[in-house]
Amino acid sequence: MHPDRLQRLRTAMTQARLDCAAAIAGPNLFYLTGLSFHLSERPTTGFFPAQGDPVIVAGSLEESKVASGAPYPLRGCYYSDAAGPVLAYREAAQTLRLGGRGQGMARLGVETRRMRVMELRLIEDAFLNPRVDAAEELFAGLRMIKDASELAHMRRAVEIAERALLAALPAIQVGQTERGIAAELVVQTLRAGSDADLPFTPIVASGPNSGLPHATVTDRALQPGDLLTLDWGASSGGYMADLTRTFAIGAIEPELRAIYNLVLAANEAARAATRPGRSAADIDAAARRVITTGGYGDYFVHRLGHGLGLEGHEDPSMHGQNETSLAPGMTFTIEPGIYLPGRGGVRIEDDVVVTAGGVESLSTLPRELQVIGV
Amino acid sequence: MHPDRLQRLRTAMTQARLDCAAAIAGPNLFYLTGLSFHLSERPTTGFFPAQGDPVIVAGSLEESKVASGAPYPLRGCYYSDAAGPVLAYREAAQTLRLGGRGQGMARLGVETRRMRVMELRLIEDAFLNPRVDAAEELFAGLRMIKDASELAHMRRAVEIAERALLAALPAIQVGQTERGIAAELVVQTLRAGSDADLPFTPIVASGPNSGLPHATVTDRALQPGDLLTLDWGASSGGYMADLTRTFAIGAIEPELRAIYNLVLAANEAARAATRPGRSAADIDAAARRVITTGGYGDYFVHRLGHGLGLEGHEDPSMHGQNETSLAPGMTFTIEPGIYLPGRGGVRIEDDVVVTAGGVESLSTLPRELQVIGV
Repeated sequence: MHPDRLQRLRTAMTQARLDCAAAIAGPNLFYLTGLSFHLSERPTTGFFPAQGDPVIVAGSLEESKVASGAPYPLRGCYYSDAAGPVLAYREAAQTLRLGGRGQGMARLGVETRRMRVMELRLIEDAFLNPRVDAAEELFAGLRMIKDASELAHMRRAVEIAERALLAALPAIQVGQTERGIAAELVVQTLRAGSDADLPFTPIVASGPNSGLPHATVTDRALQPGDLLTLDWGASSGGYMADLTRTFAIGAIEPELRAIYNLVLAANEAARAATRPGRSAADIDAAARRVITTGGYGDYFVHRLGHGLGLEGHEDPSMHGQNETSLAPGMTFTIEPGIYLPGRGGVRIEDDVVVTAGGVESLSTLPRELQVIGV
Repeated sequence: MHPDRLQRLRTAMTQARLDCAAAIAGPNLFYLTGLSFHLSERPTTGFFPAQGDPVIVAGSLEESKVASGAPYPLRGCYYSDAAGPVLAYREAAQTLRLGGRGQGMARLGVETRRMRVMELRLIEDAFLNPRVDAAEELFAGLRMIKDASELAHMRRAVEIAERALLAALPAIQVGQTERGIAAELVVQTLRAGSDADLPFTPIVASGPNSGLPHATVTDRALQPGDLLTLDWGASSGGYMADLTRTFAIGAIEPELRAIYNLVLAANEAARAATRPGRSAADIDAAARRVITTGGYGDYFVHRLGHGLGLEGHEDPSMHGQNETSLAPGMTFTIEPGIYLPGRGGVRIEDDVVVTAGGVESLSTLPRELQVIGV
């Protein structure tokens, strides 16, 4: 599996005219090597040349991990805390025979959304001021279509997240705080078998707080008449689930029920529109049309969703300007929302995979409004 | 509190001859503004000029957070997903009157260990190729000495972590897996009241795995005769605890008990050596001398510890080359270890604060070897 990924990377690099692609501790390096590194003040970088064996620079404590876990020949350049990383990066450049004297300017592709200025400066030094291109799309393109093993992890992550919600629901009662509900949801997610590294801290937004599209958890206690939005995740084998459901705490105002029904219809419309050949923008438009026609277009203030996999947000981004054509194996969220400032909001988020015939929702929790907590 | 921090930043910037310091989503921005942003594909950057009001660039969804939460005048430059961040960064540069035509080259200090190539490129564009300096030490210097409110959060985080361990101990039995113990420890940490964002996933390393200084959690089941190292944390109000204890699962080999006693003596020696005016290197040396004299110097393969606060690893780094002079209010870990490859290892980690008279250990769990699990 990993040698195949390396081969696909090389093909993409040739098309992009890159001599080498570089990935720091994180999902791209994990995808390409199966090795998991912690992002810390000790830089780690994998260099994947168009020709020849990859090279990894890491702190000396990582040597046994690389030696025992690499899925193909992978040369390591290690540094001690006392020595620092400068010479190890230079050793990597020499090993790769890129950027040395008389070798011309190396063309490197890097992850601009992840690589830090620290690693960039080390690379500029080691490769004698290479040309540095953004390689986000190159890496994202490799990872956008999931293989069977990746989909199995994602199904499992969604299943864990769903079981966690069902286990947490009884604890959601009038008087309980957002923070208390968030803790209960995390506990149940871990009990249900998630990787200990949760993709993100749950969002628990009640009453007027649910009217904020990016609410943070507060000590507000649930009250009758609240909308309650839960946005939570789980992970399995490094792959993530990301779900949202909105509940009614007892009886709610008619307008809040009306926006609920609109968001539900928008979620359904987006799923119905999803199939190979359609663009990401088409799917965003299908949902947005429902909400705009219903009179709340100005209150759907974010994109429809985002790709999902080893990262909580990856390609394809499901927004109105993204003409990426959907293909079987792509996985993303569908999460339309309406937010009435100071009053309340609704978001319904599913995780879906594009299939040959259309779409499959990995998440299967009920989407109809449930009244709970009283 | 925050205006005072801003004033201290300005003083440090004047000494460093910087026109402006920039901090992206993360602890420095939180420290200076009290505002918490998520690091995502949407860049967020706070610009703190030597003169005039700070400016923040963020996605438009963050506008209400900035408007309602800023502790002093803070101008916002917001961008929509559709527009992207380029113009908002240029607007920030214009607002700050830095890097514009006829204004000379701006001198910016950035967090090279945190800022990504993405934000760097946006800043280079907006400020017309400024001079970009590493401002790690400038920010770290501000944060190294904790004030009373910060110490209160750290005490609480340590208390939570200690209660979590005591609650998890009964579940640690022969036959239980490392992964199961890690999940139980996370659950108990959240139940004990930690922020839902744990500082890191617990390390649970048993038997030969404890001989790896940076072990990752596996499915290995505990066996009689194992050493078991637990390295876990908690957080409160954004501040972190980071503790390690090593246990014996039943009777252990005499050499493993001998290295335990050496590590314990090294931990004690380091705490006893800590007081204002001593250097970080002095404290590392005090611990290392004990282990080297005991004949295991080659097996203590990492620094003594690291600063602790809003980040799991911050200044002062407690290693043999760091001549930073300790001062009251500095907080760091003391975590000597001995690792026998393939056999087992011991680490005993406490979180301490330098006081006027010496040192106080925030962690108070017993350090003597405890035999458990059988």
